Amino acid sequence: MEPITSRANARLKAARRLQAKRHRTAAGLFLAEGEDIVEEALAAGVLPAETFVAADRPPAEELVARLARGGPVHVVADPLLAELGSLGHPARVICVFRRGDLPQRDPGATLGVYLHRVIDPGNVGTLVRAAGALGPAFVALSAGCSDPLSGKGVRASMGAVFRVPIEQVDEPPAAGRHIALDPGGGRDLWQVDLTGPVLLLVGAERLGLPEALVSGADEVARIPQVADAESLNAAAAATVALYEAVRQRAAA
Amino acid sequence: MEPITSRANARLKAARRLQAKRHRTAAGLFLAEGEDIVEEALAAGVLPAETFVAADRPPAEELVARLARGGPVHVVADPLLAELGSLGHPARVICVFRRGDLPQRDPGATLGVYLHRVIDPGNVGTLVRAAGALGPAFVALSAGCSDPLSGKGVRASMGAVFRVPIEQVDEPPAAGRHIALDPGGGRDLWQVDLTGPVLLLVGAERLGLPEALVSGADEVARIPQVADAESLNAAAAATVALYEAVRQRAAA
Repeated sequence: MEPITSRANARLKAARRLQAKRHRTAAGLFLAEGEDIVEEALAAGVLPAETFVAADRPPAEELVARLARGGPVHVVADPLLAELGSLGHPARVICVFRRGDLPQRDPGATLGVYLHRVIDPGNVGTLVRAAGALGPAFVALSAGCSDPLSGKGVRASMGAVFRVPIEQVDEPPAAGRHIALDPGGGRDLWQVDLTGPVLLLVGAERLGLPEALVSGADEVARIPQVADAESLNAAAAATVALYEAVRQRAAA
Repeated sequence: MEPITSRANARLKAARRLQAKRHRTAAGLFLAEGEDIVEEALAAGVLPAETFVAADRPPAEELVARLARGGPVHVVADPLLAELGSLGHPARVICVFRRGDLPQRDPGATLGVYLHRVIDPGNVGTLVRAAGALGPAFVALSAGCSDPLSGKGVRASMGAVFRVPIEQVDEPPAAGRHIALDPGGGRDLWQVDLTGPVLLLVGAERLGLPEALVSGADEVARIPQVADAESLNAAAAATVALYEAVRQRAAA
């Protein structure tokens, strides 16, 4: 197959637009780059709509064959593929996935994390990864959170976006008792019962949760931290709370 | 004071060299940028050896006065200050600090984390931050770990490098029982007694800890995780283990 060597190629151009959040939203598509990440998609049973592979540094043929089950495979001149990606070290493969193919929250899910206006893509992605490893939990994101399907978000999640149900919400969903994490108040986290259905509410660092969400929660929990220290970031605090839920449930 | 407008200025040049690890090591100095980070240094009682401030966008005079107690303050043309820094959004202030002014491990410390060949600077910095917030704990870094005093490391620690004792080691120090974190084996973390002096051994993601460190540890602990999921990264796993130690000690 002749590789695509023109930046103006229509397929490449359409894919490149997905680097911008508004185009991802409008098209219902997003990019995932790197062999390890697209392997995670396949392992989760999610096939790409379209695949771009580097002409000079292609990924393993066997991987390309599996990706081809989802849709067309385009061979692209390496510098053009690097432009489509967001990594310092260019990927050998970049796929377009459909947002609609991602998992939805099970109505019976008993563990979730609501993130309030967490703007750092690394933080959001890291939390999605932790939600996949501990629980598993679903993730609900407020308006103003970084898009988990951005290049950095998908990368930081290490592909967990393909397994972890993620929803965009206007307010914390009614999915169990609402436990607000707040370093300044409430009971120590380990004293709060997390064995039943719970949604953990976590705010961005520095700003924290808005007062209305804290006072409206069923319970407020704090992770005891050293005075004067910068508190844990949102992903770290949520990860600790997920662990605590796993611990309590194993003991219950 | 006339601002420095030449890239060849000797002070600026010497400071710029500190962007490279070998120069940081040789000089025993490192850079910290941004008002929030240098405030953390002052709050920890650590004064800079030298301070560079932006000519057009200087930080608050009151902050500069406090930094000036440590050593000379240089006013620098904004583009030259941006070159000295590593942030996308240039800092108003960048200080040179002495490695020798950083805290040393208390001989009586009962909680520490040993990181084995964790190469990601964000991961190392995030763990240092967590060690300052939970415990507090000290941090021991093997050869091959990312330098916690790199620009990214200091930034990811949010200035916790000024409070948390960090040491470079050839092997895990004799500081309590060695607990190896290994997703594949041992007892569930919450079943392992962490109330006495302990050193948590944590490996890099994917590679994990070398077999010799796992088999040589006093105990092996695992954080139960969902099968097939990418496991927690090194910083997240260590943060969870620090939390578990804090929890057990509060209950003991």
